[in-house]
Amino acid sequence: MDRDTAEPDAGALPGPNAQKWIDFHHEHAAPSEFSHEFVWDVTKEADGPFVTDVDGNVLLDFTCHIGAAPLGYNNEKILGKLREFSLLEPMKIAGQDMYFGAGDDPATADFPASSHLVQKLVDVSSQYGMDTVFLSNSGAEAVENAMKITHDRNPTAKYAYTFEGSFHGRTLGTLSVTRSNEVYTRHYPEIAGVRTVPFCDERDGTAESCDCGFFTGDGSQLRNALQPEGGHVNPDEVAFVVVEPVQGVGGYRFPSTEFMAEVGDVCETYDVPLVVDEIQSGVGRTGEMWASDHYPIEPDVIASAKALRVGATISRSDVFPAEKNRLGSTFGGGDVLSSMQGVFTLEAIEEHDLLANATERGQQATELLRDDAPPHVDDVRGKGLMLAVEFDTTQRRDAVVQEALKRGLLTLGCGEKTIRLLPPLDSTEREIELGIGIMNEAIEAAGMTVSR
Amino acid sequence: MDRDTAEPDAGALPGPNAQKWIDFHHEHAAPSEFSHEFVWDVTKEADGPFVTDVDGNVLLDFTCHIGAAPLGYNNEKILGKLREFSLLEPMKIAGQDMYFGAGDDPATADFPASSHLVQKLVDVSSQYGMDTVFLSNSGAEAVENAMKITHDRNPTAKYAYTFEGSFHGRTLGTLSVTRSNEVYTRHYPEIAGVRTVPFCDERDGTAESCDCGFFTGDGSQLRNALQPEGGHVNPDEVAFVVVEPVQGVGGYRFPSTEFMAEVGDVCETYDVPLVVDEIQSGVGRTGEMWASDHYPIEPDVIASAKALRVGATISRSDVFPAEKNRLGSTFGGGDVLSSMQGVFTLEAIEEHDLLANATERGQQATELLRDDAPPHVDDVRGKGLMLAVEFDTTQRRDAVVQEALKRGLLTLGCGEKTIRLLPPLDSTEREIELGIGIMNEAIEAAGMTVSR
Amino acid sequence: MDRDTAEPDAGALPGPNAQKWIDFHHEHAAPSEFSHEFVWDVTKEADGPFVTDVDGNVLLDFTCHIGAAPLGYNNEKILGKLREFSLLEPMKIAGQDMYFGAGDDPATADFPASSHLVQKLVDVSSQYGMDTVFLSNSGAEAVENAMKITHDRNPTAKYAYTFEGSFHGRTLGTLSVTRSNEVYTRHYPEIAGVRTVPFCDERDGTAESCDCGFFTGDGSQLRNALQPEGGHVNPDEVAFVVVEPVQGVGGYRFPSTEFMAEVGDVCETYDVPLVVDEIQSGVGRTGEMWASDHYPIEPDVIASAKALRVGATISRSDVFPAEKNRLGSTFGGGDVLSSMQGVFTLEAIEEHDLLANATERGQQATELLRDDAPPHVDDVRGKGLMLAVEFDTTQRRDAVVQEALKRGLLTLGCGEKTIRLLPPLDSTEREIELGIGIMNEAIEAAGMTVSR
Amino acid sequence: MDRDTAEPDAGALPGPNAQKWIDFHHEHAAPSEFSHEFVWDVTKEADGPFVTDVDGNVLLDFTCHIGAAPLGYNNEKILGKLREFSLLEPMKIAGQDMYFGAGDDPATADFPASSHLVQKLVDVSSQYGMDTVFLSNSGAEAVENAMKITHDRNPTAKYAYTFEGSFHGRTLGTLSVTRSNEVYTRHYPEIAGVRTVPFCDERDGTAESCDCGFFTGDGSQLRNALQPEGGHVNPDEVAFVVVEPVQGVGGYRFPSTEFMAEVGDVCETYDVPLVVDEIQSGVGRTGEMWASDHYPIEPDVIASAKALRVGATISRSDVFPAEKNRLGSTFGGGDVLSSMQGVFTLEAIEEHDLLANATERGQQATELLRDDAPPHVDDVRGKGLMLAVEFDTTQRRDAVVQEALKRGLLTLGCGEKTIRLLPPLDSTEREIELGIGIMNEAIEAAGMTVSR
Repeated sequence: MDRDTAEPDAGALPGPNAQKWIDFHHEHAAPSEFSHEFVWDVTKEADGPFVTDVDGNVLLDFTCHIGAAPLGYNNEKILGKLREFSLLEPMKIAGQDMYFGAGDDPATADFPASSHLVQKLVDVSSQYGMDTVFLSNSGAEAVENAMKITHDRNPTAKYAYTFEGSFHGRTLGTLSVTRSNEVYTRHYPEIAGVRTVPFCDERDGTAESCDCGFFTGDGSQLRNALQPEGGHVNPDEVAFVVVEPVQGVGGYRFPSTEFMAEVGDVCETYDVPLVVDEIQSGVGRTGEMWASDHYPIEPDVIASAKALRVGATISRSDVFPAEKNRLGSTFGGGDVLSSMQGVFTLEAIEEHDLLANATERGQQATELLRDDAPPHVDDVRGKGLMLAVEFDTTQRRDAVVQEALKRGLLTLGCGEKTIRLLPPLDSTEREIELGIGIMNEAIEAAGMTVSR
Repeated sequence: MDRDTAEPDAGALPGPNAQKWIDFHHEHAAPSEFSHEFVWDVTKEADGPFVTDVDGNVLLDFTCHIGAAPLGYNNEKILGKLREFSLLEPMKIAGQDMYFGAGDDPATADFPASSHLVQKLVDVSSQYGMDTVFLSNSGAEAVENAMKITHDRNPTAKYAYTFEGSFHGRTLGTLSVTRSNEVYTRHYPEIAGVRTVPFCDERDGTAESCDCGFFTGDGSQLRNALQPEGGHVNPDEVAFVVVEPVQGVGGYRFPSTEFMAEVGDVCETYDVPLVVDEIQSGVGRTGEMWASDHYPIEPDVIASAKALRVGATISRSDVFPAEKNRLGSTFGGGDVLSSMQGVFTLEAIEEHDLLANATERGQQATELLRDDAPPHVDDVRGKGLMLAVEFDTTQRRDAVVQEALKRGLLTLGCGEKTIRLLPPLDSTEREIELGIGIMNEAIEAAGMTVSR
Repeated sequence: MDRDTAEPDAGALPGPNAQKWIDFHHEHAAPSEFSHEFVWDVTKEADGPFVTDVDGNVLLDFTCHIGAAPLGYNNEKILGKLREFSLLEPMKIAGQDMYFGAGDDPATADFPASSHLVQKLVDVSSQYGMDTVFLSNSGAEAVENAMKITHDRNPTAKYAYTFEGSFHGRTLGTLSVTRSNEVYTRHYPEIAGVRTVPFCDERDGTAESCDCGFFTGDGSQLRNALQPEGGHVNPDEVAFVVVEPVQGVGGYRFPSTEFMAEVGDVCETYDVPLVVDEIQSGVGRTGEMWASDHYPIEPDVIASAKALRVGATISRSDVFPAEKNRLGSTFGGGDVLSSMQGVFTLEAIEEHDLLANATERGQQATELLRDDAPPHVDDVRGKGLMLAVEFDTTQRRDAVVQEALKRGLLTLGCGEKTIRLLPPLDSTEREIELGIGIMNEAIEAAGMTVSR
Repeated sequence: MDRDTAEPDAGALPGPNAQKWIDFHHEHAAPSEFSHEFVWDVTKEADGPFVTDVDGNVLLDFTCHIGAAPLGYNNEKILGKLREFSLLEPMKIAGQDMYFGAGDDPATADFPASSHLVQKLVDVSSQYGMDTVFLSNSGAEAVENAMKITHDRNPTAKYAYTFEGSFHGRTLGTLSVTRSNEVYTRHYPEIAGVRTVPFCDERDGTAESCDCGFFTGDGSQLRNALQPEGGHVNPDEVAFVVVEPVQGVGGYRFPSTEFMAEVGDVCETYDVPLVVDEIQSGVGRTGEMWASDHYPIEPDVIASAKALRVGATISRSDVFPAEKNRLGSTFGGGDVLSSMQGVFTLEAIEEHDLLANATERGQQATELLRDDAPPHVDDVRGKGLMLAVEFDTTQRRDAVVQEALKRGLLTLGCGEKTIRLLPPLDSTEREIELGIGIMNEAIEAAGMTVSR
């Protein structure tokens, strides 16, 4: 398959083979999300955004596994390098107990190790003075560790702040700071002391224009709570404020600059660590390495994962506990292969100037989506290749997802009425034109079949 | 390297190259556990328990990455099959949102998928009526999901029970049920309602003989708390009891049969789900598929990981929530390669009769250790190849670890005064003789250098 | 002393005797609030708002012990009846274990018992269909029991809602729903799951005019969180919403009618019990029996105390647990004398038409305060005899309190910059004129001594 | 009525008048405990242990309102002094905001004020170096404040220890440390971090003899958890250990001296404040001022109430927060009349040598109970006049309570199978003979009517 010429070519999904796999899977797999009845065939051709399913259908995948496949499938920019490495056993190792290397010297290593990944991460986070990384297995574990190190730093802390609409993971700790949908948290126990304030998603708005409730006549919910006069929370008792620079699961909500500035300023004023959850928005997705780079903030901790292939908690050495054994994880010190993929991904972004590409292709996509947008499109928004189209109703959104799928384009819902689009970071002009073209057809089709 | 003839051959660790890697690593890696200054070279030869470091030292590794490498390094029983699979991108996928397959039909798949892994896991857990599996990234996530599904099943639950000495993971939820060392939990917030009872590790003891405090004149701490007459906890408010059938981090503590029977009986009497944490003890390590199989208990949920290469929460379909989206995880539905390795591991255990081998080699090891044991060895214990030697003092234990390392044997401390040994499940008679021989030499040497 | 002719007559406080008492007290009493260095002499003359201190100073007390002395000192309307009762032992009894009566028949009882107090409370709360009361010792215990019965009613609940600026008591449970000043809560543990939303105190405002953050473009923080579409809290998991119809400690903040209507409507829509904290605002203080009576709400539980002399949790029988022993308190079933005083207080309100008097005298006071208000008075507000004057700065407020004290008027700060005034419910026109006259003089004086 | 000659004289309870009062009460009172259908007539004669009900029945009350009436009814030793004081209004005051006195000088005061009560309390607690008291309304509030001050003292604390069988009050905070019966706590939220260990009630036992589970082979549950080697709780994170020197509600369980010594020693070793709950056991009940005085412990905080008529948290000044406003309570600074009764009670104990009397009368009672005890009496125990008789079954216990009631003796169940007896502290030899005589008759009668 050659992505320069490939075209989506799909019948109704699931096809007969896919149905067999799905049925087989559900015999014993616990119910979970499963947005699509699409079954990727790992033994068939795939290239960048193009992927073949078990029935031979070719799909154009604009989900990138929710960011876990930042450059799509079998991308030569990564796979080319990876192929030189022979498979070995084990790949998930006790990486917090023992070290691994590849050759005599890290400076001339044949293959990058987890040691190189932490170095790379520090390089791309030096604008925030960050010099230390803890690796783990998932975004949830990355946020858990952010919660842990900020609590360690401030032993008397009993509070934390999170935002309406947030999603930070599926463990009990991260669910304690998640405020997006009760299905994620219902009946599960949560830790005490997490306070919630509105997330201002009027992306070009001001304190005056916004009616989300975050800004108040005399400040903001966050500032009001913490300020000595009239506040009710002692900032010394706040372990952290955690925010997604762009809310992902909550609906690809892009905050206003004033909002982020206020959050950052309150954190700085009261010396409360600002944790940014860059699990979906980070690693180039928005056209900057971190979505935080778009905003006038100075995060103290970055939690990353997905595109990175491992979980990573990035911060300054003074924020991390110095004591041995305070943090740990059997697998977490770096899966051998995943660490390598993480390094290759960061290298690919740099070598191929993918931040610029994401920015340009994002603009192309946004323009194409806006030009043709019928009235039932409420909003088109995006930064880089983190794109969203919001519709008038949930029913319409679901119809568009289906119409796109019929035409061979994989998309993903989020929030209440929104579709998110995550094309590979190295998407070409042709691919964007192709994908957004299908998207626009699907939107039009859903306009005829679904009444408001 | 041929494991049939290989011998450990090591100088003082770390060698000059290792030191470079270690220094390089710690420039930016957060402090963590790091028991050994051993740096595995992933580009050099390794076979089963034998592994080469970046300075060319050959070590005999009896830690198996704390169980994460159940058959050691580059084991042909696994790697042989794995080699047929070409590397691809991505390997960690949105496996709870989309499916993957390998070929037209799961029944004749070229390579096993996560769907096959869940099937395999159900096969080896059918003795407990288990038919459903949720995959995740780590042992911590496996236990988190066990906590979630038992809370979902019992929405009014506000309590849970755990045991002294337990270790269940490093996330805030799993730390809330961990009772092994305060360094893991200090200053971190925990969920409310977790009650603690003693873990009876007098492995051949009875209710009468034991003085751990679990058994009381008229029952046990667990039973006393839950019983309607005189108890103070309503069993209907207990989400789960979580126990390691063999405590790992806590010190390779093997409980008595009466203890496990009492725990199981209380759970059954009061309809409280029994969650067994088989993250270190499971997947054949003890000579049975699950360590639970040694005891007269009927677990309701198994949490597994490490040897399995992914996290897995195994239970009955009626324990899992039926509702879509209640559980989830971007990566958790099954890393493509890890799932495959998980299947190959379970297949290897079956094909090569490794449960029997673990039992036999474990007996060999135990006998060799006991025969020569000097007075400063307090205890030698084990089931299968989950082996432990307990010493008179922490200082002695640490000295033995060092003496073994000098002689080329990698071992691992646990608990206060214990060394744990986890040779590969397919260890040969020669390897055990070799490794335990070194161990005995190290014990003897430490007897001369360390005074009581 | 005759309150019809009495006048305040005070030198600098504390006088020499007062200083002796204060010094003596602080030898062994723990530090606490102590707003005033005023020492009431319980053996000297006092009548209604007039009280004598240990140095013979006569004060005009417009604090009514923060509502605990609703008709002031030695008021004949209460004391006249009480005098017929002989002191006995004990007065605080095991009133949840045993009953007490006064004579052969409750219908013809010589003295009212706690049984009569609960009947009286039900009478004045019948507009809300309330028919059941649980008596306790304090406002804190009244709110604690409101929290308990709403949790009992909804065993799966794990959340509750409270408001910015709230104060509900000093126990750990009530502090968990308190959001007024961190000095009350710092370092104390709190229960999990309490969510906070803004309290809209623009008393004549609308959803549009208010910028407190409670109202949003499309609803309110409370509604948004609970609604199925876009919300993140399942209403079935909310035990209660607790609100002060007028915030007391938080600054005598009177909410807008739209705010209270919204709170009430959300509670009704989602079947979440609405608990109103009437500890300071209830029992006639605002010119209605309950401050809630001013607003378009239907509370499900009323927590009362102070003016009532005991704590009382009032609700419908279906909200209370039917099971014996679920609620209890050794003293709580009704202090013999306090219950009697509670009944006499409710009777006095009825017999002497004190609701109307409070309303009229409140209007008189408000007008007098507004007429003369210099620029540094930011706001004069009140309902009935729950009155507040807000100043431009905290310093000014404190100065006014001192200037009033010099002139013989006792007042009390609250919030940041506010003085609260609570004259006896049977205050006369003369007393209001006298007291507000002094207040206006004090305000004027503070205008000269304190710069903005 | 003259207690020197009075005799119980009761028909079946409730009589017709009592039934009227009970029916009247339950029209609107919430369900609660109500052990007895006995209705005290506060207008009729009563003296010491003798009390008249609304039908004219005379009862011998050996419950003393669970200690709230330490010298019984209308005891001249207290009431004689109280009568000189004229009733006034209000009696419950804002005692943390303002002071009250009685006359020119505390040294020559006509009546004791709350200031005198705190002084008296410090006098009787000086053996523990205690010099500071915080007054509140109830035992629950006294324990809540003990929890607060120990958390304030140790801002990083997140744990606390309590004991099986404990009861500390009915607020959410005190219920979080209560472990006696799930009816008190079911469905109510609790604070996190409270750990539970067994309470050793083998009163003359040793570490070796006891099988309660507290003592272990190498220490105790409490010590094992806190010790650096092998423990899992950092003592620096423990706010307090709270213990009843004699468990009350849990069953009048008297701990062994070794148990209390171990608890005290662990607290001292690890600098964890020891809070003793003396709410039922304190103020002379056991023949010492505090039950703690019987044991080799040095409590850091005493929580008292009941016999004291107010709640009191007693400690050293360095344990209390120095900051104004950290503690508070509208009513808590001292009800005027209750404080006076508290002082008179402490004076009566001293003037009439009631500690010695309680000890002697307690011995008399114990001997009389033991002498005649039939086989279905499992245990007779007591310290001073805190007495208990334990039976073979709950059914038997309940029968004895009824048989005693028929004969005019009021007693009270506790624990599972126990009757507690609390005669007035100034009980005479005749009264004990009379009461225990009835008790023995009731025990005998229940032996005939109830089979094992």
